[in-house]
Amino acid sequence: MGEIAQEAGVSVPTVSKVLNGHAHVAAETRQRVEEIIARRGYARRPARRSKKAGLIDLVFPGLGSEWAREIIEGVENVAQEAGYGTVVSSLSIDGSRTRAWLANLAERKSDGLLVAVYELDAKQIRRIKSLGIPVVLIDPVGQPGPDLTTIGATNWKGAYSATEYLLSLGHRRIGMIGGRPDLQCSSAREDGYVAALRRAGIEADRSIMVPGDFSTEAGEAETERLLAADNRPTAIFAGNDAQAFGAYRAARKAGLNIPADLSIVGFDDIPAAEWMEPGLTTIRQPVVQMAETAMRTLLRQMDGEEGLPGRIELATELVVRGSTARPA
Amino acid sequence: MGEIAQEAGVSVPTVSKVLNGHAHVAAETRQRVEEIIARRGYARRPARRSKKAGLIDLVFPGLGSEWAREIIEGVENVAQEAGYGTVVSSLSIDGSRTRAWLANLAERKSDGLLVAVYELDAKQIRRIKSLGIPVVLIDPVGQPGPDLTTIGATNWKGAYSATEYLLSLGHRRIGMIGGRPDLQCSSAREDGYVAALRRAGIEADRSIMVPGDFSTEAGEAETERLLAADNRPTAIFAGNDAQAFGAYRAARKAGLNIPADLSIVGFDDIPAAEWMEPGLTTIRQPVVQMAETAMRTLLRQMDGEEGLPGRIELATELVVRGSTARPA
Repeated sequence: MGEIAQEAGVSVPTVSKVLNGHAHVAAETRQRVEEIIARRGYARRPARRSKKAGLIDLVFPGLGSEWAREIIEGVENVAQEAGYGTVVSSLSIDGSRTRAWLANLAERKSDGLLVAVYELDAKQIRRIKSLGIPVVLIDPVGQPGPDLTTIGATNWKGAYSATEYLLSLGHRRIGMIGGRPDLQCSSAREDGYVAALRRAGIEADRSIMVPGDFSTEAGEAETERLLAADNRPTAIFAGNDAQAFGAYRAARKAGLNIPADLSIVGFDDIPAAEWMEPGLTTIRQPVVQMAETAMRTLLRQMDGEEGLPGRIELATELVVRGSTARPA
Repeated sequence: MGEIAQEAGVSVPTVSKVLNGHAHVAAETRQRVEEIIARRGYARRPARRSKKAGLIDLVFPGLGSEWAREIIEGVENVAQEAGYGTVVSSLSIDGSRTRAWLANLAERKSDGLLVAVYELDAKQIRRIKSLGIPVVLIDPVGQPGPDLTTIGATNWKGAYSATEYLLSLGHRRIGMIGGRPDLQCSSAREDGYVAALRRAGIEADRSIMVPGDFSTEAGEAETERLLAADNRPTAIFAGNDAQAFGAYRAARKAGLNIPADLSIVGFDDIPAAEWMEPGLTTIRQPVVQMAETAMRTLLRQMDGEEGLPGRIELATELVVRGSTARPA
């Protein structure tokens, strides 16, 4: 491989990528490398191929959300193109399923692991590394070690844009419903909201920042709390779309019109955001592309590439629909 | 195993299930078999275990729907309990990805295959059977061979109930938007609709039975066609929930109030059905349970059980919300 790389004027990992049929090689480079391979009669080593499991693993704490579906879609697409099957596992948050899953993983082998919003402890990570399995994290929980690459959206920036947009409409009292507090993305969204308020000269009022868990039920219950407060907010940044739908329900129960009496902004832009009446103003998170990026980064690790970034963030985007307006 | 089965007074497949840790064995039976195993010092044969791939495969034509998410959730839950990893693959309808997928499957091995709304041709099925992989179909496409077990919902009955409910409200002119015409579930829903009308003495009017593809876009476009017709329907049975959401949009564009001017019924009961305003009256399809049943049936085949049913249907249920009322 070294000789082929030298003759083609590319790196050894690039030759490896061409041999393994990966997508992220320029067409011209691929052609040059393949010509040299054909001319030299280089045979793909069967020993090396047979060592591959032909599988990558994708782990969630649960499969109940549209977010999980989009992650599977993006990962599976890139994995299949590269010749890998995608093993999807749902591990419960209490960790009760993790031991059996690790045993299955060790027995059947896996070529790489993507962990989505789930926390493996240091011992489990060591076990996986001792099996020679590279790991990439999607929307990590807690503070993962510095040697792990993590993928996410620009959560801080997205929350900042959502709050900035509500401020630009004239809102001054904006409630916020948080997400699962152990997730990095929740903290980043909270910080972005606080930063945008501060920039407008408004100190965040902790009494209208309420916790959530990214469910519709939490969105409904917390909106009811916010609406019951003295000097209730004229707008709510709901943390994600599911919580925003709960906010719709609470607003209707309180006889409030959206957006005339209450503006609502979500985060995610799942399909239902467009189906609602009025359509939900939200921050679009490129979930499928995040998953594709995570899988491509994992492939680079599997190819032995070093010096990969510690964190990759994909841009979010404000999508304005009918759930936001100037305050009455 | 034969001796253990005889002493316990159970079948050999039951002993095999206990040995393999499957869930569907009565607790008392399991305990009796395990006692005998322990007493006789029977060791699980490592040779047999190492022949297992520890994986089952689940194949879709695409991963873009809530339906697919719920199928993954149900299959993965039962598979993991039984000690299997779930490999999820999206094969494009044009068949362009099938050859590479089959090659990956043959190389890495698989213990069983679930095919969801996807059609493998006779040659591909023979190839899979020659690999010794049992197959179960979920919501089959076309007319699968008689030796394959298929799992679905009571689609005929569900559509019959939906139509019967609209008739009971006083509707006489009920439009229907069909589903992907190659799917058995689409034909069954159409037949159920026609049968309910006939029972009420109404001959189905083909001019208000329009084709669809289970997408929101098709639901919107076909509802526009239905509303533009002379003597337009007062109610629409939308074929599935995504099409019903498209019907909501078309009704609003036409300035029609739901349900006062137009009643709408869906099929599936995905979470968004409850989020909509008004909530969508629909036929609940127990998708997660269908997937669990499919996986349990696959496990029984993998255990060598014979004489399994050719077709298993899980009951649907009418869920009445705000999108239906008496005609004006």
